[in-house]
Amino acid sequence: MRNIRLIIEYDGTNYLGWQRQPQGATVQQVIEEAIFKITGEAATLFGSGRTDSGVHAIAQAANFRTESLIAAVNIEMGLNSILPDDISIARAEEVSANFHAQFDARSKTYLYRILNRGNRSALLRRRVWQIPHALDVAKMAEAAEILLGEHDFRVFALAGWGVRTTARTVLRADFERVEDEIRFEIEATGFLKGMVRLIVGTLAQVGRGRITPEDFHRILDLGAKTKHVHSAPARGLYLKEVKY
Amino acid sequence: MRNIRLIIEYDGTNYLGWQRQPQGATVQQVIEEAIFKITGEAATLFGSGRTDSGVHAIAQAANFRTESLIAAVNIEMGLNSILPDDISIARAEEVSANFHAQFDARSKTYLYRILNRGNRSALLRRRVWQIPHALDVAKMAEAAEILLGEHDFRVFALAGWGVRTTARTVLRADFERVEDEIRFEIEATGFLKGMVRLIVGTLAQVGRGRITPEDFHRILDLGAKTKHVHSAPARGLYLKEVKY
Repeated sequence: MRNIRLIIEYDGTNYLGWQRQPQGATVQQVIEEAIFKITGEAATLFGSGRTDSGVHAIAQAANFRTESLIAAVNIEMGLNSILPDDISIARAEEVSANFHAQFDARSKTYLYRILNRGNRSALLRRRVWQIPHALDVAKMAEAAEILLGEHDFRVFALAGWGVRTTARTVLRADFERVEDEIRFEIEATGFLKGMVRLIVGTLAQVGRGRITPEDFHRILDLGAKTKHVHSAPARGLYLKEVKY
Repeated sequence: MRNIRLIIEYDGTNYLGWQRQPQGATVQQVIEEAIFKITGEAATLFGSGRTDSGVHAIAQAANFRTESLIAAVNIEMGLNSILPDDISIARAEEVSANFHAQFDARSKTYLYRILNRGNRSALLRRRVWQIPHALDVAKMAEAAEILLGEHDFRVFALAGWGVRTTARTVLRADFERVEDEIRFEIEATGFLKGMVRLIVGTLAQVGRGRITPEDFHRILDLGAKTKHVHSAPARGLYLKEVKY
């Protein structure tokens, strides 16, 4: 049985997230159907993790097993010719039989894009969170420093997914300002449900001066959901990289 | 009579270009209808120039006259609340009574984005021209140097629009590579119909090594449409700035 790893880019706007859902189209389901058309096999596509409804991916990783003898490069071309234009395969490659996209992931990196300007943007409307208020990025970066290392992130998690522990290790949490855009990148060994959006939404409260970096630290330490714990919208979030 | 200048961003994907058309929705028409809702007046919106079907704008400029006393900032907010999400107003401001967005433009700058990679991009599908072949950007830049100054650009023009002369003056024509993207910016005192797309499509022939920079120079000098004169797709083109 061969094992194929896919690196997948998608515009999450029109999907109910990664994971198969009875209620509507998901990225996993659409790719599984395309794999069926190519191989004739009903394969299960294992993603590195779920992304929520409306969240994008620059490089989601996933794998599926197949008896087919089609070369990986032809699977790549075949999928790109079948898949709708809001899902594309950056690469398909054969990996060792025991590789698993979820369990073998060493870290994941998410990118969050904030457009910090007064008026909405026609061109970026499905790609960023537009915040019209002045944001103090230095204070947001100061607050984000507390995220580094291992912490109990339950205050920045939605219920569900039945995880064993809410402790996660953050390896990097950087802000960058590029013209009127603020980009936040966070790399961690794993993420809880809704974690990046809750972190960014709450960091935005710091940026607006509603809470201090110290308040943000206390929110994480105490683990209590105060009224300042907000979730940022899905459209600004991108799964950027999965490391193995 | 007050005169209001608008700076407009739009995603051209779903429009038949700027100029009113009987066949379907255009950006001019949609904004004129929004102005009517705010002022109650059937104003004509004069654009700095037309953009073709599917072409985007980062900062199109336009003006309209009104008897209304609504402050420019409230026109700006009002239009942004009425317009569909693929058109946004970056700024509305009062200008002198004789200002005309087309006739007073000193120069216009267009941006063209090429995504130079093997596979299509889900996230950028409506924003770039994806070229899978290797492109020699240095050769494209060398070829583009001939564009600078005043030339007869009729070889890089589509018929129509009844212009008096096909001579135009190009002030700047720069290439930049940003990761797997090639960005071409061209500033000129004016452009002919389809001019930027014909220039970029033909420069791509240089990039692929099908013609040399010298061939490109000859195409411009001789003014004869050879088989290497190609038009690049609309989705990679952006009207970036209009100077007054």
